[in-house]
Amino acid sequence: MNFRMTTYILGILLFFEGVFMAVPTAAAAVYHENELPLFAAIAGFCILEGVIITRFKPTNKKLFARDGFVIVALSWVVLSLFGALPFYFSGTIPNFVDAMFESVSGFTTTGASILHDLTPVPKCMLMWRSFTHWVGGMGVLVFIMAILPLAGGQNMYLMKAESPGPSVTKLVPRVRQTAILLYAIYFVMTAAEFVLLLIGGMPLFDAINIAVATAGTGGFACNPEGMPYSPFCINVITVFMILFGVNFSCYFLLLQRKFKEVFTEETKIYFCIIAFAIVTITLNVRHLPMFQSTGEALMHSSFTIGSLMSSTGYSTVDFNQFPVYSKTLLIILMFIGACAGSTGGGIKVSRFIILFRNMANELRVMTHPRQVKKVRMDGHQVEADVIKSVNVYFAVYLMIYVINLLILSFDNLDMTTNFTAVVATLNNIGPGLEQIGPMSNFDVFSTPSKCVLIFNMLAGRLELFPIVLLLSPATWKK
Amino acid sequence: MNFRMTTYILGILLFFEGVFMAVPTAAAAVYHENELPLFAAIAGFCILEGVIITRFKPTNKKLFARDGFVIVALSWVVLSLFGALPFYFSGTIPNFVDAMFESVSGFTTTGASILHDLTPVPKCMLMWRSFTHWVGGMGVLVFIMAILPLAGGQNMYLMKAESPGPSVTKLVPRVRQTAILLYAIYFVMTAAEFVLLLIGGMPLFDAINIAVATAGTGGFACNPEGMPYSPFCINVITVFMILFGVNFSCYFLLLQRKFKEVFTEETKIYFCIIAFAIVTITLNVRHLPMFQSTGEALMHSSFTIGSLMSSTGYSTVDFNQFPVYSKTLLIILMFIGACAGSTGGGIKVSRFIILFRNMANELRVMTHPRQVKKVRMDGHQVEADVIKSVNVYFAVYLMIYVINLLILSFDNLDMTTNFTAVVATLNNIGPGLEQIGPMSNFDVFSTPSKCVLIFNMLAGRLELFPIVLLLSPATWKK
Repeated sequence: MNFRMTTYILGILLFFEGVFMAVPTAAAAVYHENELPLFAAIAGFCILEGVIITRFKPTNKKLFARDGFVIVALSWVVLSLFGALPFYFSGTIPNFVDAMFESVSGFTTTGASILHDLTPVPKCMLMWRSFTHWVGGMGVLVFIMAILPLAGGQNMYLMKAESPGPSVTKLVPRVRQTAILLYAIYFVMTAAEFVLLLIGGMPLFDAINIAVATAGTGGFACNPEGMPYSPFCINVITVFMILFGVNFSCYFLLLQRKFKEVFTEETKIYFCIIAFAIVTITLNVRHLPMFQSTGEALMHSSFTIGSLMSSTGYSTVDFNQFPVYSKTLLIILMFIGACAGSTGGGIKVSRFIILFRNMANELRVMTHPRQVKKVRMDGHQVEADVIKSVNVYFAVYLMIYVINLLILSFDNLDMTTNFTAVVATLNNIGPGLEQIGPMSNFDVFSTPSKCVLIFNMLAGRLELFPIVLLLSPATWKK
Repeated sequence: MNFRMTTYILGILLFFEGVFMAVPTAAAAVYHENELPLFAAIAGFCILEGVIITRFKPTNKKLFARDGFVIVALSWVVLSLFGALPFYFSGTIPNFVDAMFESVSGFTTTGASILHDLTPVPKCMLMWRSFTHWVGGMGVLVFIMAILPLAGGQNMYLMKAESPGPSVTKLVPRVRQTAILLYAIYFVMTAAEFVLLLIGGMPLFDAINIAVATAGTGGFACNPEGMPYSPFCINVITVFMILFGVNFSCYFLLLQRKFKEVFTEETKIYFCIIAFAIVTITLNVRHLPMFQSTGEALMHSSFTIGSLMSSTGYSTVDFNQFPVYSKTLLIILMFIGACAGSTGGGIKVSRFIILFRNMANELRVMTHPRQVKKVRMDGHQVEADVIKSVNVYFAVYLMIYVINLLILSFDNLDMTTNFTAVVATLNNIGPGLEQIGPMSNFDVFSTPSKCVLIFNMLAGRLELFPIVLLLSPATWKK
């Protein structure tokens, strides 16, 4: 383990976390809120600490795979810890585990909350919650890489560990340029949504919050009344939730005018699943008393589907009241999740493609032992290592799920609540069903259960391996 | 495809199905029931048809992997179809899909029933239901192989496809001798349970039925009042349910006095899981009003755990009323299932061992790329092919599960009912939770859903691949 380099990177991280806090500090200033000095103090403290730590430059900058996992995992833990301080010290969330829950939920773009009512929450705190989504969405280390020329050619380990999906595609040969490009696309798309929401008549504060939260596929609400916006705004949010769930390399190809390559197989299947869900769920729910017309059912179904599939987690209707078919399909969409290389969470469409194509292949071999074929995606052969890692991912996922269900069951909540709480946190979605449905919150769980859910959110955001390896004794052996 | 050979084996199968029907025919004679001529006629019809078909001996006896899968899958479909005739023609179950459901549930040792009340059901029908468990438990083709010297050395394909678990161990070098040994152990253990139940004061009819049903890890009830037996009998059933979930090669090693090898890693883990579940569930349920003492809670918890883990499916208490921890653990046990090479269903302990050991291995490689280790079980290296097949098994399982949940959801029953209905049928257990709990039955489902559940039971009993391959177009290509 390169401990020196690890500390150094954590120092840089703290520095930037302090810088990020300028955003809520500004909000506190604009809205003349009492939390202004507190936010400024915490931001200053983070920056100062960052400056002190990074004064000790490591001589050996070499990173190995193991360092990559550990650095990424620790970064996210430290980021969340310091991100929780404003909630805790302001008294907005007086319990530290709860504050940590909220902070982790923010950075991991989950959007699950323990707050019962947003009315007494200051606007600067709401802004900080939403902004953590934006920071966490594309990855904070990717951000640092875009700003700083960190180390030799070994940043790829960090990027691999932080980016969603079974394999990372560098858009351009150099890691730093790739990071800059990703953030540029991210920023422009966020700005586009923001402008459209303003055009749709949304108040400025809400438009900023919702734009940054949607971009990170987060899902923290910023308005105590929920989503009291015009149908135009609702539809804009739906479209952008779905777009932020697409692999960002598609947008890069679009910029390069390589129109033929834009729609990868994963993207096509992602849109097909969404279309299938929108049609069947709209048909299934259109007669519910909560909808006055099929058009209204279509709008809210699309919103719900885009929200859950992209792992954003916003809601305009209580899908707890949907018929069983719709609820079942929504849960399946929650498991599938967005595309690899997007800001969305979940298991990812491409993992399912690889899993099922490999399955079909192996089944064919059983009856025709001599016809060995390779698993292919977008015309390329999928490497055996990627297939292996997909299989291991599912095994780890299953293991975490089973342990989770057993621990959560001690709270004696109903089984649907527990079952969906795990997928809602592990896939960074936000709401689940029953007692953690869109109209409820995660405060129903006991403190030990909340700790488990915090673990899930971190593990899920980092695609399981870094957090699991951080806790594995084998990682720390020489 | 060797169609001639396939038809020939199906002919032999029909012949033996007719012979098996001698048992319920005898029951009808003993209890002077009106169904005697019907049973005799159907038995005669099966035997006659079998004799006619097998007169055309195939010249080419060569079987390939593909033939093995198709023969096994078709055998079980034909077996169930003819097994349903007595229920249907006697009017006991006037709907043919329902009769087929009951027959499939019997042969696959599931024990899920669509009957509301057993009071009007003739004893010969109850006997036939229970006896199908015994026939299906060890495998009907294994039985035929024990009786007849079928083909050259290629019976292994059939045995592989019909035997539970990721890999088949031949007890002795020759397939036929292995089959004879398996049935000998099976018969002796069934007889032992029968005698013990009689000693415990159980009526003769019930003792025969329960002994044969437990042996196959079935679970059809034979008494309209449920399980009104002495604690001694309940405990005997518990012990035998657990014992029939153990790999039969353990008993063979016991006979050979190789005491050191008897407890394979799978067996040890199987018993550890059962012990853990008994202790924690007893502690969890001991204060429920349904139990008068901790001893009583222990007895019924053990029975429930043995029943669900071995996939038998008998019940002495309504575990629907257990606290959430117990219900969650019971569902997990239902998924795990019994040991490979037993008569029990489920995913099998050894598949989980291989899945998680392979996972641990691959995680270690991520942080220590140079330390490549092999997955080991019982001191032997697990072949790459076995690991592959375990991964494919889980992928197929997941696919079937998702499709199932969507189809069942149209019945608009609650999600826990649907979720547990799939595992209860796919793992050949019997009861699930909520509306298909131990005090209910599967008649709550619509006919299309029942068809899906019939598919599950057959797929689950044959370890997924044969039935899935039977339906796959690729299997039928030249």
